[in-house]
Amino acid sequence: MQIRHLISIKHLSNKFVEKLLKSAREMEAHPEAFADRAKGKILADLFFEPSTRTRLSFESAMLRLGGNMLGFSSPKGTSVEKGESLADTIRMAHSYADIIVLRHYIEGAGRVAAEISNVPVISGGTGSQEHPTQALLDLYTIWKHHGRFSNLKIAIVGDLRYGRTVPSLSYVLSLFPNNKIYFCSPKQLRVRREVLSEIEGKVEYEELEDLEEVLPKIDVAYITRVQKERFPDPQDYLKVRDSYVITPKTLGNVKESFILLHPLPRVGEISYEVDKLPQAKYFEQAKNGVYVRMAILDYFLNYPWEV
Amino acid sequence: MQIRHLISIKHLSNKFVEKLLKSAREMEAHPEAFADRAKGKILADLFFEPSTRTRLSFESAMLRLGGNMLGFSSPKGTSVEKGESLADTIRMAHSYADIIVLRHYIEGAGRVAAEISNVPVISGGTGSQEHPTQALLDLYTIWKHHGRFSNLKIAIVGDLRYGRTVPSLSYVLSLFPNNKIYFCSPKQLRVRREVLSEIEGKVEYEELEDLEEVLPKIDVAYITRVQKERFPDPQDYLKVRDSYVITPKTLGNVKESFILLHPLPRVGEISYEVDKLPQAKYFEQAKNGVYVRMAILDYFLNYPWEV
Amino acid sequence: MQIRHLISIKHLSNKFVEKLLKSAREMEAHPEAFADRAKGKILADLFFEPSTRTRLSFESAMLRLGGNMLGFSSPKGTSVEKGESLADTIRMAHSYADIIVLRHYIEGAGRVAAEISNVPVISGGTGSQEHPTQALLDLYTIWKHHGRFSNLKIAIVGDLRYGRTVPSLSYVLSLFPNNKIYFCSPKQLRVRREVLSEIEGKVEYEELEDLEEVLPKIDVAYITRVQKERFPDPQDYLKVRDSYVITPKTLGNVKESFILLHPLPRVGEISYEVDKLPQAKYFEQAKNGVYVRMAILDYFLNYPWEV
Repeated sequence: MQIRHLISIKHLSNKFVEKLLKSAREMEAHPEAFADRAKGKILADLFFEPSTRTRLSFESAMLRLGGNMLGFSSPKGTSVEKGESLADTIRMAHSYADIIVLRHYIEGAGRVAAEISNVPVISGGTGSQEHPTQALLDLYTIWKHHGRFSNLKIAIVGDLRYGRTVPSLSYVLSLFPNNKIYFCSPKQLRVRREVLSEIEGKVEYEELEDLEEVLPKIDVAYITRVQKERFPDPQDYLKVRDSYVITPKTLGNVKESFILLHPLPRVGEISYEVDKLPQAKYFEQAKNGVYVRMAILDYFLNYPWEV
Repeated sequence: MQIRHLISIKHLSNKFVEKLLKSAREMEAHPEAFADRAKGKILADLFFEPSTRTRLSFESAMLRLGGNMLGFSSPKGTSVEKGESLADTIRMAHSYADIIVLRHYIEGAGRVAAEISNVPVISGGTGSQEHPTQALLDLYTIWKHHGRFSNLKIAIVGDLRYGRTVPSLSYVLSLFPNNKIYFCSPKQLRVRREVLSEIEGKVEYEELEDLEEVLPKIDVAYITRVQKERFPDPQDYLKVRDSYVITPKTLGNVKESFILLHPLPRVGEISYEVDKLPQAKYFEQAKNGVYVRMAILDYFLNYPWEV
Repeated sequence: MQIRHLISIKHLSNKFVEKLLKSAREMEAHPEAFADRAKGKILADLFFEPSTRTRLSFESAMLRLGGNMLGFSSPKGTSVEKGESLADTIRMAHSYADIIVLRHYIEGAGRVAAEISNVPVISGGTGSQEHPTQALLDLYTIWKHHGRFSNLKIAIVGDLRYGRTVPSLSYVLSLFPNNKIYFCSPKQLRVRREVLSEIEGKVEYEELEDLEEVLPKIDVAYITRVQKERFPDPQDYLKVRDSYVITPKTLGNVKESFILLHPLPRVGEISYEVDKLPQAKYFEQAKNGVYVRMAILDYFLNYPWEV
């Protein structure tokens, strides 16, 4: 069996995820061995919404596999502005390229694209629904440090309502046994109910407001941005803000193997003094994006292994 | 003899066009045989006006020939905004690249560029004058389906006054014997007089308002966008709009070999139900742009055959 | 010894500059011999401020060395707009690429980047401080025509206060013996005092307002833009403007070996009639940018020679 598109973590099996991340580890260990895997192939970047890390790490991955890319990093000045439908834009892209990376502000854009496209469509984040390749690189980073996909205690922290990395990370953790997720957020930004329904019965979880109480027992804290503008009353924001800023002091009591992740960009949620601590793995996490995306591109261009 | 630049269809012979499109057919049949034709070569994209299909299909063509590209997809943030002349921008581009694709909002920009440039300049559409590479891919699509360049009855439909694909398509059809063009548009958007003077005596044509009357006898209908903002009185627009929207019903009475083309993007001129009909060839037409532009780039970079 | 980053001319020795420019001459003479020097390597363009010539000539250089590039040509739509720090953007870029070219509007941005980056950072112009690669291609052009780095009389003309090419060119000239700089500008736009302190005792210089008096004795005139908006009183601008516009008449009395340079884009400082004169070397200067930047990229990617 081959998977044709990567739109959601929900359609993946834990076997697939494991094989993919093992392939990424090969890419990281011996990148030169894969330098021709995408030779003569073209990636189409269709970024209907700004992105830096996702777009550039996909491009870096494609180039490191010997391929190349075209497309747009913003819909400004494209036929989208003339009123072209997403379906027609996809039909154009699949005529010009061998694989599509799509970022879109509309929920469900990925599914529409996958239905129409003759070439694989990889979601680079759509709506506030999902960001599957981010979840895969998050899990890769966790696996590299903890050596396992299971028996992990993970706090996902910050804006759990709007952050599109949150559902995908929750889904990927629920594919493996004995994980536990602590959803840690201010009341206004609790994880959406449909995300909880999706993982219900598949992974243990708990919702809480105070990160500190779980810090000593978790293996990973995954921080996301809490944006002021999400709070109708600015006073509410000021009240919660500080409990969601990670400083060296916050990490005083963590396990020895504890690691701190963030999908980046950060804007104040982790103080700069934390960067030098051994727990800070968010820059390595960003770098891992290249290897994981190399493995993703290789899979969808070449189907090098069976699911 | 070598042709140095591709600015207008007017300077081409039917021999040249035929050879070029035969070369495109080779590219389509055996793309891998041409994978190194532009190795080490650089295409400069100079897009002073938005474009998606033209830019990306040129880039796809260049990459498929083993070359690469640089440039800009909008003049925002370039030295053009600091007041640099087109001539100076061209002198820069020919120092950095081996071939230039220019799209510009000003009539005559292509000619100016060709006079100055040391490397071939290919027009990607200038002013509302011409769009020669579009006409070549249009003709390629017609040729693939009808097997001939001559004895064709073609309706060009919609905004014939401002659409820059209209003059180029008319000129290329007038290079071959026994073609007939039906210019079908609302009164306000009739084809410009200088276009008619150009083809006068070279190709038979007729101007009309009602597409339906010619539909049963034509081989190709070429639809273009009718933009509301072209009509001083919105009532006039509403009156004509519907006669220029193609639905499955419109096509009830066409010849068996009839095909429907559109340069795209479309915004309502062809209903989505038409997409599945065998006559709908506009997506294939867009794809053909890659092969035709491969042949164009190969010709102007390598002069692989004599005119 | 290896130089790790190229942020300022101040940290370079004349030996280094000479070797680099000799390497550029090799690149110009036999570009094909270097076609694989950056094979598999990636350049990150981080352009926080518009640029055409610098960005595109770096890209052309990278492609001609067999490498490739990714990045952004404007901070619009990047995580910078979400408030990401320069340090974090650099940490991202060095994970995705092998070398970084940075243009930034803030003074000192280059130094910050160099402190953080694991891969070489090349300044593509920062603040109004420096533009080291421009100075190197300026000197390359002078050397090609005069055959020497020393015993040169050079007038730097126009806006010496804000132009970022002025300090770098002054510094590079001060590395070699017996050069003399004539800083020629309206009073309001005199060269900044810290630039003079830097070169004090290293190179002879003179400040003046009237270019004409030195024209007969100089080897090179380096023209920069005088922008109207720099003058609080528009009358002051009108008074000086004409003495800073080069026409064929201006050049009536120059030495036979005299050459005229301009970093471009120009907006009226050199009349178009000058372009055909043998002294006009600014287009060649722009083209030289490719060879000099090839040599720079080769040095910082491969360290092919010792300093």
